[in-house]
Amino acid sequence: MWYINDMGMEIERKFTVRHLPDELDSYEYRIIEQAYLTTEPTIRVRREDDRYYMTYKGVGGSNTSLSHEEYNLPLTKEAFETLSSKADGNIIRKKRVLIPYGKHMIELDIFDEPFKPLIIAEVEFETVDAANAFVPPDWFDEDVTDQREYRNAYLSFMNKE
Amino acid sequence: MWYINDMGMEIERKFTVRHLPDELDSYEYRIIEQAYLTTEPTIRVRREDDRYYMTYKGVGGSNTSLSHEEYNLPLTKEAFETLSSKADGNIIRKKRVLIPYGKHMIELDIFDEPFKPLIIAEVEFETVDAANAFVPPDWFDEDVTDQREYRNAYLSFMNKE
Repeated sequence: MWYINDMGMEIERKFTVRHLPDELDSYEYRIIEQAYLTTEPTIRVRREDDRYYMTYKGVGGSNTSLSHEEYNLPLTKEAFETLSSKADGNIIRKKRVLIPYGKHMIELDIFDEPFKPLIIAEVEFETVDAANAFVPPDWFDEDVTDQREYRNAYLSFMNKE
Repeated sequence: MWYINDMGMEIERKFTVRHLPDELDSYEYRIIEQAYLTTEPTIRVRREDDRYYMTYKGVGGSNTSLSHEEYNLPLTKEAFETLSSKADGNIIRKKRVLIPYGKHMIELDIFDEPFKPLIIAEVEFETVDAANAFVPPDWFDEDVTDQREYRNAYLSFMNKE
């Protein structure tokens, strides 16, 4: 029921939602666009509002030069646009709404085309125990933490409708 | 007469050659292929024999998050091929012959198409004084250290013949 996410560093759980929470517009949000240039190693470019960066995550395995190094490298807007236009898969665009919930922060990802009306809620935890102890709000639906079809890297290579 | 190169870290001088040195086949060499995905920041993918990596070099300026960070990140062969196929400019292919010369090492870059018959000799130095004191061998021709048209990033965006 817990899951080390794409970045290999965080413990998180992921849920579909039954409906949107009340007063959605009152929360802070970020506009996120991301695209994958390669998946092994993972090279992802991302826009978060007006910040642009490339994430590199080394592939695992016994070859130490290819172990789990991870870097977030700043890009200019122009470099982001050049690189995202080179992505093989889909460009993922989503609005990430930040919803405080007890001592946790729910990241509610509202996807744009071609994934609309997909909505996924993610919650990150410090420890596996905290992840297991988490009681979701009643507007959460199914726990899809272990379902790879909800991973962003997987979505980016789905066929568009 | 000296020059901080593309990588911002080395002092080097660069020359055209009058002719190839004797017994060229007796020296060690590497096969290098490289391509640029963006130039600001510089994102270059490179093959050196059977090693593949991506070099990221942050752009300078007052924004510290974009300062001169430089990373060499390992790639798989497949990721290199995917990324080099996405390069906007030319893929540079060259044989780099390593020729010991006194206490220096001459890197003689013999370019393949579309730059053939371009040949450039590079020598790196520890200090600016050493660069200025360097006496080239008689088979070197013109010092082109300051000529941007001999830079690899520039070559990669030249029109092919």
